[in-house]
Amino acid sequence: MNIPMATKPHDRLAAALAGEMAAVDKLIRTRMQSENAPRIPEVTAHLVEAGGKRLRPMLTLAAARLCGYQGDYHLGLAATVEFIHTATLLHDDVVDESAKRRGRPTANLLWDNKSSVLVGDYLFSRSFQLMVETGSLRVLGILANASATIAEGEVLQMTAATDLKTDEDVYLKVVRGKTAALFSAATEVGGVISEAPEEQVRALYDYGDALGIAFQIADDLLDYQGDSGATGKNVGDDFRERKLTLPVIKAVAQANPEEYAFWQRTIEKGRQEDGDLDHALALMAKYDTLTATRADAQGWAAKAQAALAPLPAHEIRDMLHELAGYVVARLS
Amino acid sequence: MNIPMATKPHDRLAAALAGEMAAVDKLIRTRMQSENAPRIPEVTAHLVEAGGKRLRPMLTLAAARLCGYQGDYHLGLAATVEFIHTATLLHDDVVDESAKRRGRPTANLLWDNKSSVLVGDYLFSRSFQLMVETGSLRVLGILANASATIAEGEVLQMTAATDLKTDEDVYLKVVRGKTAALFSAATEVGGVISEAPEEQVRALYDYGDALGIAFQIADDLLDYQGDSGATGKNVGDDFRERKLTLPVIKAVAQANPEEYAFWQRTIEKGRQEDGDLDHALALMAKYDTLTATRADAQGWAAKAQAALAPLPAHEIRDMLHELAGYVVARLS
Repeated sequence: MNIPMATKPHDRLAAALAGEMAAVDKLIRTRMQSENAPRIPEVTAHLVEAGGKRLRPMLTLAAARLCGYQGDYHLGLAATVEFIHTATLLHDDVVDESAKRRGRPTANLLWDNKSSVLVGDYLFSRSFQLMVETGSLRVLGILANASATIAEGEVLQMTAATDLKTDEDVYLKVVRGKTAALFSAATEVGGVISEAPEEQVRALYDYGDALGIAFQIADDLLDYQGDSGATGKNVGDDFRERKLTLPVIKAVAQANPEEYAFWQRTIEKGRQEDGDLDHALALMAKYDTLTATRADAQGWAAKAQAALAPLPAHEIRDMLHELAGYVVARLS
Repeated sequence: MNIPMATKPHDRLAAALAGEMAAVDKLIRTRMQSENAPRIPEVTAHLVEAGGKRLRPMLTLAAARLCGYQGDYHLGLAATVEFIHTATLLHDDVVDESAKRRGRPTANLLWDNKSSVLVGDYLFSRSFQLMVETGSLRVLGILANASATIAEGEVLQMTAATDLKTDEDVYLKVVRGKTAALFSAATEVGGVISEAPEEQVRALYDYGDALGIAFQIADDLLDYQGDSGATGKNVGDDFRERKLTLPVIKAVAQANPEEYAFWQRTIEKGRQEDGDLDHALALMAKYDTLTATRADAQGWAAKAQAALAPLPAHEIRDMLHELAGYVVARLS
C-alpha cells in the first residue's frame, strides 16, 4: 500500500463533510440511549466507539450535498443508515459466532448472544423511528426494501455458503444483500430527500449498488491475497469458515472431478486437513481466479464511476469517483 | 374451566371477522415467501401454521370494523402486526433458549439459532414494507414506536428478570414492552386507518394497552396456579427459569431477611434445590400475592372495558368487552 493516508478519498470525503458527520455522530449518541434499559447504550457504544469508517452515513451526506440539499433530514437518514448497519453487525456476529470485530472482542462475547440479538432489534426500531421523522414515504419505502434485501441476503448466504451449486448469480444476490443494498439505499435516499431529478436519483442508486458490489468482491479477494494488516483477518479465513466466495466459485466452476471432490470435502463437508488451504490456493492459481475476481471488482468500480455522469460537476462527485477507484486500487 | 368453547369471546370475534381473517391469512402466506431464500418460508410456516390465536391481527380488524372502515389497508396492517409478533417469537426463543412453543419444537431447535435470528429480521423487514404500503405516516410512527418499546422491554426483561430490585414499576414497563405495546398498536392503527375521531383512537389505544397488561399478568399468574392443560406449561416454570414476575415481586417486597435470602439464592444466584418451588409457593401464600396479582389483572381488565365507552355501540364492541373479561375469568 503506497498511497499515503492523507490522500485516501474516504478521508477527503470525511474532511469535506466534517461538520455534518459530527452532527450525525451526536445524533447517533443521543438516539442510542435508553431510559429504561442501560444495557442498550453499553452494547451500542462498544460498536459505535470502535471507530468504524462510517462509510454508509457519509454516502448519504455526500449524496445530499451533491444534490444541493438545504434541510436537516439528511442527518437523521445518515444516522438511520448507520443504525441499520450496526444492527446487522450485531446479528451477524451471533450468526457467525464471531469473536472479533474491528479488532475488538464482539458484543456477543463481551455480553452474550441475547444482548446482541435484542440490542440489534432495538437499533433497528430506532432507525425506523428516525426515518419516519423525515416524513417521506418514498424514503421509507427505499429503506424498507433495503432491509428486506439485507435480511434475505443473510439467509441466502447462510444456506448457500457451503453449497457447491452456488454460482456467480447467487453470489451476486448475497453480495447485494450483505453490502450493496445498504450502500445503494444510503446514496439513493440522499438524492430523494434533496428532490433531485429522477435521473440523478437513479444515478445515485446505481453508484451505491456498484460501489457496494466492488467493495464486497474486493473484501472477499483480500481474504485470499493476504494484506492482513489492512483487513485484520488472516489469509484463508473464508476457506476455513467454509464460505464460498467468488475466487472459489470460479475455481469450482472449472474443476475436474478430482478437484471437485476436494471442494466437496473441504467446503461442503468441512473436513479440512493440514495443507488444504495451500492446495485451495494452488487450484485458484491454476485457473487464475484471483485475477478474474480482481477484474470483476474493477469492472464494478468502473460501473460505479460511470454511473456518476448524470450528477452535477462538484468536488464531492470527484471524491465519490476516486472512492470507487480506491476500493479496487488496494487490490493491485 | 367450565365455559364451553363455543362461547369464548375470541371465537365469536373470529367468527364475526372470518372473511377478513381469511384474507389476512392469505396475505401472510404470500408475503412470507422469498424467491431467493427458501429457508425463510420453511421457518415462518412452522410458526404460522402452528395455530396461534391470531389475536393481534384480529384486534386490528375489530378496531377497523368498529370504526366503520371501508378500505383494504386494515388487512395489510393486521398482517404487519402478526409478522412483528412472529419475528419477536423467533428472537425470544433464541434469547430464552426455548425448546417448545405452542406445544411444538421451536425453530431454533428444528433449524438453528442463526435461522431464527435472520428469519426474524426478514419478517420484521416484511412487516415494515407492508406498513409503508398503507401510505399513512401516522400508522408508521405508531408501529415504529411500538417496535422500539418491544425491543427495549425485551432488553429490560433480560437484565431485570433476576434482579431482586425489580419493582412493580419496572415489571409494568417489561409487560408493556413484551405484550401491551403490540396490543395497543394493533387496536390504535385500526382506528387511525379508519380516520376515527381522536377520542376513539385514544380509546382504542387505552383498550389495547390495558388488555395487553391484563393478559400478561394473567399469564404470569397462571404459571404459579397450574392449569397446565390450558397453558402448556408446568407450574413454576418461571421460578425455575429465575423470572421475576408479579407474584414473586409482591412477595419479595414484603420479605423478612430470611425470606429475602431465600429469593436471593433461588432467583438472583439461581442456586435452586429440591423443595424450593414449594417454599416459594408457601411464601406467596403467606402474603397472599396470588390473590393480589389476580386483583391487579382484574383491575386492568376493568380498565380495558371502561376504555371502550367512547366507541360506537356495536356487536364488535360487546365482543371486545367480553374478551377483556374472559382474559381474567380464566383465573377464578
